[in-house]
Amino acid sequence: MNTKPSLHTVLSPRLLDLYDISNSIVVIIDVFRATSTIATALYNGAAKVLPVDSVPRCIELGKITGGITAGERDGKVVEGLQHGNSPTEYPRSFIEGQTLVLTTTNGTKLLHMALDRGAANIITGSFPNLSAVCDYLVNQEKNVILGCSAWKDCFNLEDTLFAGAVIERIGHHFSIHCDSSLMAKDLYAQHQQDLVGFLRKATHWHRLSAYGLEHDMEYCISIDVANVLPVYTNGSLIVQE
Amino acid sequence: MNTKPSLHTVLSPRLLDLYDISNSIVVIIDVFRATSTIATALYNGAAKVLPVDSVPRCIELGKITGGITAGERDGKVVEGLQHGNSPTEYPRSFIEGQTLVLTTTNGTKLLHMALDRGAANIITGSFPNLSAVCDYLVNQEKNVILGCSAWKDCFNLEDTLFAGAVIERIGHHFSIHCDSSLMAKDLYAQHQQDLVGFLRKATHWHRLSAYGLEHDMEYCISIDVANVLPVYTNGSLIVQE
Repeated sequence: MNTKPSLHTVLSPRLLDLYDISNSIVVIIDVFRATSTIATALYNGAAKVLPVDSVPRCIELGKITGGITAGERDGKVVEGLQHGNSPTEYPRSFIEGQTLVLTTTNGTKLLHMALDRGAANIITGSFPNLSAVCDYLVNQEKNVILGCSAWKDCFNLEDTLFAGAVIERIGHHFSIHCDSSLMAKDLYAQHQQDLVGFLRKATHWHRLSAYGLEHDMEYCISIDVANVLPVYTNGSLIVQE
Repeated sequence: MNTKPSLHTVLSPRLLDLYDISNSIVVIIDVFRATSTIATALYNGAAKVLPVDSVPRCIELGKITGGITAGERDGKVVEGLQHGNSPTEYPRSFIEGQTLVLTTTNGTKLLHMALDRGAANIITGSFPNLSAVCDYLVNQEKNVILGCSAWKDCFNLEDTLFAGAVIERIGHHFSIHCDSSLMAKDLYAQHQQDLVGFLRKATHWHRLSAYGLEHDMEYCISIDVANVLPVYTNGSLIVQE
């Protein structure tokens, strides 16, 4: 009898409702750059990150909490917010003890969809906190949804590669009957030795490198450089100790 | 200046509306088994195939046209229809000169979505007619959408592999800025030497092999064994001479 929990990979927010997530941990993945920035801010001592789904809500919560407002739309800093979505903007000297109120094109949207659909638990994942995510998923022994934020609902390579990295490491702890997961694992296995070289072909790499953000992206695919576990609790992402 | 036409891969019907298909050729891909069966019936001399999106409509059109009604839901023959969705059911001795009225779980649904959204041209593709599809796409010099029928809107490996096979062969004729296409090409390049071995892991392989349909699936990934081009014209798929 197979008693392992299940694991599925969702390649676009548009496909989330095909899955029953009510008994699952949902891992929100937005490699370029929201979930990499979240891990980094928390690793560098941010008290909490409030992920919000609109710019007006971001500004409003910034006022209420005294937090730093930050966000991007289409890869650029949004007018009216104080900071952008780059992990390099949040060193310890700046972010320690602060609240970050963050809105982004894709990642924060998927997080709110997972909330609305009653996910049992929500965490965020990215290469900078790969090990923390894997350790948590193995220890919880619950069903898992690896949720790729994608780009405006279109499939993207970088989020899929992160899902593949998780499956490569801990897939054997789960029962996997999911073509998306098989593909993601294969894609990662094929390219793990040269993620930067492969991702230079990706549409999002082209988009962000046009803004001079190559360094950001190289950081965002660096494994375990901000190895904390952001867990969504009462409206905030905080570090699970 | 880049004047090549564009090529995109759509991984699920649920994602079709993210693309402007009005100036594009849409290739409907349903490897297991609708588009393989369509190619085979036409290769074996069927006068035409009428793809319909519901069982009642299939029965109605069968009466009007005197055609053979056929179809499946969830991989099984539908009650009330004469035949199933297996290419082996349509040898020349049976199908020559006949009209086949066909309804399936995924492929015929996507075809009607592409029609409703105003595709410029619609053809069907599968490994049995890979070369005919590639030759047509190169000669037309139009934008291309490779439309994977998927399984109840969930990503599947076999349709993605066919998209990858097309891109591997003729991708250099197109301008490709599409992560789905990069992934599909990579997946095919990695597994083209052993498609059967790889697809044995796929969820649809498990589903259909439980009905004893392994032989069907091996046929469906055989290249150019029914090498005709089904083109959608006035409600029918007919062979483009």
